[in-house]
Amino acid sequence: MPRFLIKRTAAKGTSPGSLIFLGTKKMEQTRMRIIHYSKENLIERDILDIDEMDDFLKEDTVSWLNIDGLHDTSLIENVGEKFDIHSLQLEDILNTDQRPKVEEDEDNIIVYLKFLSRNADRRLNAEQVAFVLGQNYLITFQEKTGDYFEHVRDRIRNFKGRIRSLKADYLLYSLMDTIVDNYIADIGELGEQIENLENKVLQQPDQETLTEIYNQKTEISFIRKNIRPVKEILTRLLISQSGLIRKKNLIFLRDLDDLVTQSLEAVELYHSMVTDYLNIYHSSISNRANEVMKVLTIFAAIFIPLTFLAGVYGTNFEYLPELHFKYSYFVMWGIMITVAVIMLLYFKRKKWL
Amino acid sequence: MPRFLIKRTAAKGTSPGSLIFLGTKKMEQTRMRIIHYSKENLIERDILDIDEMDDFLKEDTVSWLNIDGLHDTSLIENVGEKFDIHSLQLEDILNTDQRPKVEEDEDNIIVYLKFLSRNADRRLNAEQVAFVLGQNYLITFQEKTGDYFEHVRDRIRNFKGRIRSLKADYLLYSLMDTIVDNYIADIGELGEQIENLENKVLQQPDQETLTEIYNQKTEISFIRKNIRPVKEILTRLLISQSGLIRKKNLIFLRDLDDLVTQSLEAVELYHSMVTDYLNIYHSSISNRANEVMKVLTIFAAIFIPLTFLAGVYGTNFEYLPELHFKYSYFVMWGIMITVAVIMLLYFKRKKWL
Amino acid sequence: MPRFLIKRTAAKGTSPGSLIFLGTKKMEQTRMRIIHYSKENLIERDILDIDEMDDFLKEDTVSWLNIDGLHDTSLIENVGEKFDIHSLQLEDILNTDQRPKVEEDEDNIIVYLKFLSRNADRRLNAEQVAFVLGQNYLITFQEKTGDYFEHVRDRIRNFKGRIRSLKADYLLYSLMDTIVDNYIADIGELGEQIENLENKVLQQPDQETLTEIYNQKTEISFIRKNIRPVKEILTRLLISQSGLIRKKNLIFLRDLDDLVTQSLEAVELYHSMVTDYLNIYHSSISNRANEVMKVLTIFAAIFIPLTFLAGVYGTNFEYLPELHFKYSYFVMWGIMITVAVIMLLYFKRKKWL
Amino acid sequence: MPRFLIKRTAAKGTSPGSLIFLGTKKMEQTRMRIIHYSKENLIERDILDIDEMDDFLKEDTVSWLNIDGLHDTSLIENVGEKFDIHSLQLEDILNTDQRPKVEEDEDNIIVYLKFLSRNADRRLNAEQVAFVLGQNYLITFQEKTGDYFEHVRDRIRNFKGRIRSLKADYLLYSLMDTIVDNYIADIGELGEQIENLENKVLQQPDQETLTEIYNQKTEISFIRKNIRPVKEILTRLLISQSGLIRKKNLIFLRDLDDLVTQSLEAVELYHSMVTDYLNIYHSSISNRANEVMKVLTIFAAIFIPLTFLAGVYGTNFEYLPELHFKYSYFVMWGIMITVAVIMLLYFKRKKWL
Amino acid sequence: MPRFLIKRTAAKGTSPGSLIFLGTKKMEQTRMRIIHYSKENLIERDILDIDEMDDFLKEDTVSWLNIDGLHDTSLIENVGEKFDIHSLQLEDILNTDQRPKVEEDEDNIIVYLKFLSRNADRRLNAEQVAFVLGQNYLITFQEKTGDYFEHVRDRIRNFKGRIRSLKADYLLYSLMDTIVDNYIADIGELGEQIENLENKVLQQPDQETLTEIYNQKTEISFIRKNIRPVKEILTRLLISQSGLIRKKNLIFLRDLDDLVTQSLEAVELYHSMVTDYLNIYHSSISNRANEVMKVLTIFAAIFIPLTFLAGVYGTNFEYLPELHFKYSYFVMWGIMITVAVIMLLYFKRKKWL
Repeated sequence: MPRFLIKRTAAKGTSPGSLIFLGTKKMEQTRMRIIHYSKENLIERDILDIDEMDDFLKEDTVSWLNIDGLHDTSLIENVGEKFDIHSLQLEDILNTDQRPKVEEDEDNIIVYLKFLSRNADRRLNAEQVAFVLGQNYLITFQEKTGDYFEHVRDRIRNFKGRIRSLKADYLLYSLMDTIVDNYIADIGELGEQIENLENKVLQQPDQETLTEIYNQKTEISFIRKNIRPVKEILTRLLISQSGLIRKKNLIFLRDLDDLVTQSLEAVELYHSMVTDYLNIYHSSISNRANEVMKVLTIFAAIFIPLTFLAGVYGTNFEYLPELHFKYSYFVMWGIMITVAVIMLLYFKRKKWL
Repeated sequence: MPRFLIKRTAAKGTSPGSLIFLGTKKMEQTRMRIIHYSKENLIERDILDIDEMDDFLKEDTVSWLNIDGLHDTSLIENVGEKFDIHSLQLEDILNTDQRPKVEEDEDNIIVYLKFLSRNADRRLNAEQVAFVLGQNYLITFQEKTGDYFEHVRDRIRNFKGRIRSLKADYLLYSLMDTIVDNYIADIGELGEQIENLENKVLQQPDQETLTEIYNQKTEISFIRKNIRPVKEILTRLLISQSGLIRKKNLIFLRDLDDLVTQSLEAVELYHSMVTDYLNIYHSSISNRANEVMKVLTIFAAIFIPLTFLAGVYGTNFEYLPELHFKYSYFVMWGIMITVAVIMLLYFKRKKWL
Repeated sequence: MPRFLIKRTAAKGTSPGSLIFLGTKKMEQTRMRIIHYSKENLIERDILDIDEMDDFLKEDTVSWLNIDGLHDTSLIENVGEKFDIHSLQLEDILNTDQRPKVEEDEDNIIVYLKFLSRNADRRLNAEQVAFVLGQNYLITFQEKTGDYFEHVRDRIRNFKGRIRSLKADYLLYSLMDTIVDNYIADIGELGEQIENLENKVLQQPDQETLTEIYNQKTEISFIRKNIRPVKEILTRLLISQSGLIRKKNLIFLRDLDDLVTQSLEAVELYHSMVTDYLNIYHSSISNRANEVMKVLTIFAAIFIPLTFLAGVYGTNFEYLPELHFKYSYFVMWGIMITVAVIMLLYFKRKKWL
Repeated sequence: MPRFLIKRTAAKGTSPGSLIFLGTKKMEQTRMRIIHYSKENLIERDILDIDEMDDFLKEDTVSWLNIDGLHDTSLIENVGEKFDIHSLQLEDILNTDQRPKVEEDEDNIIVYLKFLSRNADRRLNAEQVAFVLGQNYLITFQEKTGDYFEHVRDRIRNFKGRIRSLKADYLLYSLMDTIVDNYIADIGELGEQIENLENKVLQQPDQETLTEIYNQKTEISFIRKNIRPVKEILTRLLISQSGLIRKKNLIFLRDLDDLVTQSLEAVELYHSMVTDYLNIYHSSISNRANEVMKVLTIFAAIFIPLTFLAGVYGTNFEYLPELHFKYSYFVMWGIMITVAVIMLLYFKRKKWL
Repeated sequence: MPRFLIKRTAAKGTSPGSLIFLGTKKMEQTRMRIIHYSKENLIERDILDIDEMDDFLKEDTVSWLNIDGLHDTSLIENVGEKFDIHSLQLEDILNTDQRPKVEEDEDNIIVYLKFLSRNADRRLNAEQVAFVLGQNYLITFQEKTGDYFEHVRDRIRNFKGRIRSLKADYLLYSLMDTIVDNYIADIGELGEQIENLENKVLQQPDQETLTEIYNQKTEISFIRKNIRPVKEILTRLLISQSGLIRKKNLIFLRDLDDLVTQSLEAVELYHSMVTDYLNIYHSSISNRANEVMKVLTIFAAIFIPLTFLAGVYGTNFEYLPELHFKYSYFVMWGIMITVAVIMLLYFKRKKWL
């Protein structure tokens, strides 16, 4: 549940715009890594002071500054100052419970996304990634060092694809594409779990199956909550007037938009399937209740009358003529068997057997 | 279930825009067939190299290039180069799980549709068909050689209808019309199945009926998922500014739009009918549970008191006066029958019998 | 169910725009009747050839051509040619399963509506009526000769109302008004049936009631499906730029629009009432199940312990002291009656009695 | 139910725009009362002929003509002629089942509202009030003489508030405000009833409670149906271009709009509360069924095995060793009590007791 | 429930715009406190007469007038006169059941918000706060003296944050931010309660759990009802043309807008979770009913046949051969145990045990 809480409460009473890290500290040391590239050159190294950036920010090159770890607020503040990021936006970058969104300034576009991963007990977890896109640079803020973007780095290093010849906006696209690919993988996994669930529901549903259905529902809500705003973000980027997104790169964003739409449709579909499973679950519970009751009724309806009959001849009346007939006992058995057979046939005809 | 997965996951980590065929290879050899026609002439033949197309691309004629089989990515790449198709769009053409959509370029309009067919076990299956419309050509990409478009070819060959006198956009319309006609046929078949289902639900519903209801629901979702975007596609084509769709042909697209609207309404109706069946199913389960319980109650309420009475006179008390009266036994029977009749009348009045 | 099928399937494979009558032939001979009127004059007669129309199409008069029966496709084709109706539109006129809609051309406005009537078994049935409105003429296409428009004809003949002094667009309005009046009557009848249903549901619901509820739901869906598009049609006519609808007659269409809105609201209300009935039905089923179970429980809880007691004194132990006390039997009865009374009081307090 | 019927059916077949009173005649004699006022003067009297109005219609004064009773169609027709009201609008004024709406003409604005009141059996009832607003006059049409507007009259007479210094549009606002105040009172009463209902549902729900819940649902639908269009009316009046609504009076309409929004929100809330009650009702029915079944099961599970045991020793076998042991009978009782206690403990642990 | 009533009813019949306090008097004496500050100076003191304000209203300073207690209508009227607040708006300020909204005038912007707090029995309660923003002043109206804004006052006093250097619009933002922070805290607390509820629902749900679920639902409705309009308010403020909100402060309002969106999403999520709990609750009730019934059936199905058998040998027939065989009694026991074991195995296989 705490996954859904808004953490700002912790900082209640502080002036808005004061930088407070609201996440859980996920690594020891904040790390700043820079990849600086143009079509011809590539420099990759860690920096310790944000002012080292000045060496890289040149026309016609791309500088990708990656900051892992958000707890060192003074460092973040320096970054904000250097790149003209409003203190409220820095606050949002530090607030790891920030809803995915995009903000446009005169000089940069800030995108907040969630990277979804599964933790030890296979539950989905969201990690915030913030992107600050400028004319010739891209800054990424991550909660901890992760390797999600490693293969993009590989493409830059190995000059694979068109990444080295295009600008910072294409880099932003490539990274967002990685995140969206990751959503699709998560949705795929979800799909498989739901498929397994279907079999359980149809064959041997129990209280545990119910819990599992609701867990899946929660997972779906969690994914939807994190992906849905991405659609809005892309819509906004597609109509952005800032000039930071080049016209000819819009086709990539549109492609991403398609993927997100498709993901959301899949999520909605899974949602409706899980709802169907719930209904099937309830139906089979009712069906089994019916079955139990039929067994009871059949036993009761057959043996209660017979027991009554036996009871009658168990009475101790002095004048009870049947008791003295020779074949009474066998006649009684005959009657009993006849009654039982009639009852069985009746239940047969009612399709209870 | 795998019908709903997004396949891009398989290619996770590759640079976007790299061509990878994500479908199942459905035929051995990619085949390129060309039908080139004008009002006067008609040439129809297979080609092996995309450059052979140059002979055909003339003003005032229509060249329909049909490509069956998508696994030969280098061939597809050549086609893309020749006709200025963006690599991202080629990727979408090869991704057979692409959502139906339309994309407009300066030189061409690309439409992605799904052809629905039933496989061996009568379940609906979607096959992707992509259309690239240019000024004087239309390219169709199919997963495998199919005969859906055969009767359009017949019309071209036999100069039936207005097809030979109109341009490539009318050809696109004719092919889309074929696909939509096919949807309508599928919906018709669905309608019949649902009608059959109604009888089962009303007369003798069992757990199997329930499974069938949910299967129908899944089929309906599947159809809806594939048809709904076609509505959007048509809306976009109707307001297209590209000049590739001639004004006077808009009336045909509008007609198609009507058909798709009608199809979607029918699908929605079937959806609500199936939901109704579910409810009826649940009601009849409850009704039957009630019936079972009534039988049990009637038997128990009649025989349990009588058995008790017999039990009383089965006791071995020394001083039990009734045992010694001459007609006690018959009086007991009298009382028993009276009680039973009263109970029966009571249940009769309660309408349980 | 076939009421919801789209019939175009039958013609699958034919070139779009080829005229094929897809309805059921409802009369022998197509009949063309003309009413030609101006403020001063009135001519009414049957014609055999569409070219006879030329005599009537004059400025400042209204010519109403009524065509009953749609199976004579060549005649329809002639009409289409004479009045510049596109072959696709003719196709829609012949397709009696066409969804209600409006289409505007340069020279005419075509409206497709459904006339609802009840057939022999009181189920609603839709009959298509198509209107082609020109500057000084109105053509109506009907599946069979009906008398729905008779009282409009009467008004024209008897110079009642403003109909003779206004133009063809007012005639169109008058006929549409007749159809909408008819919807209102159908909805009224539906309302009465639903009122009757309410009593059944509240008093003595059985499986049959359930079937009836679902029948009403289907009827409501059917009405809604046919009326809802009429709202769109009116909206389109109200903003029509064609000049065929005179400004000062817009007030009549707005009035019609109000009526349709009101009808749709009533239909929605009935829909939600029927849904409520379904829920009441289910509740009363549960309530009755409860009642059955209470009867069972009361009988069982009272007599099972007593039978047990009798059973104890029915055992044949040699040393069973109570058997030999003089008043044991009466004490046993006393205990039994006490137990029974206590149980009854207990159930009374639980409000089960 | 008849509350929801559209009455126009009664007049089916008459020419639209012919004046027919479709309501129930609620008073004997139509009455026309005029209140004519300016800041300085006030005249109040009944008139018999509409032409008497000419004396009052002066610049800078307000003439409020109130017409009670709508069955005298010729009188209404005269009023329509005098004030340029279209015959279709007169028809709507007479049709007391008209949906609330607003219509703007060149010279006047016509508002149709419903006044809600409770009849003898406490069910809500709607009475139509129509307002015709002109430059310096307001005409109100009511089905019967009512005293709803009496306190507005009092304010005019006693020069209370700003009513005498403002124009006819403020008078319209004041009267609409009265009607909306009345809605709020009705909703308040509804709220109290729903509060009472809550207690019944939570404590001792029975079939009657269910009927009451559905009655409340119907009342809520009825209120919503009548208030919802008022929101549209106000929106239209607020953007009216006619000049009949003075700019500086818009603030009053906006205030009214707020109240109506609030009322609708309250109604929606009550609707969802009533739906919740339905669910609670169903839950408590199930809970009670459970309780009944537990009682049955406990009795059966305890006494059936014991009865069986007694039955065993009630058999008449010649060689049944236990019968002859001295303490068998007491041992049997011991066993029986032990079994019963074990069962009770078992049920206790299962929390059934 | 009274929490949802609209109180205006109490004043029914009074002229709109007459000032009547409709809330509950929550404090004895209305108190007016002023904080007057600029970058350099700070004056803080209570005033008794509104005219004392004249000393403070200077260019380039901010005057924050806080009025606690709304029952002194004449004082409020004076304030209204001084600051050109329309009487209808004053009426809304006094009506503590006013829906949150914003109103723009030429000279000021009025915002009505709700401050949510929990009362003694932990139920949420709404207190109205109204803000009147002018060029260089802000007036806040509260129902009673509260300390919600204390830490904003502290920030002003201690020159913390940017508050002293910015204008009245930033002060308004800071106060609204405090209120929204408070919403987030309430939602957080709600989240924890819902988390607790989840455990109860999954483990040992009873009728009380149900009541609690519905209480949570009501709380969620209450929060939603009060927060949802805040979104509209912020949207309106963001597009305000009045010039009272400075362009460069819009970023703060946008930030607030994000928080409110996030809060609403959390509320919606909780709403859907609570709905899920309801369903889980119902499932576990059915499951337990099933379990009860299984226990009953197992006991009945095992012992009823055995009792019957014992009954047969309890009959007193003279000729009953089995009675005289030596091992009959033991054979009977053997049969009985066999039957019981078979039944147990049968139930085992059916997974009822």
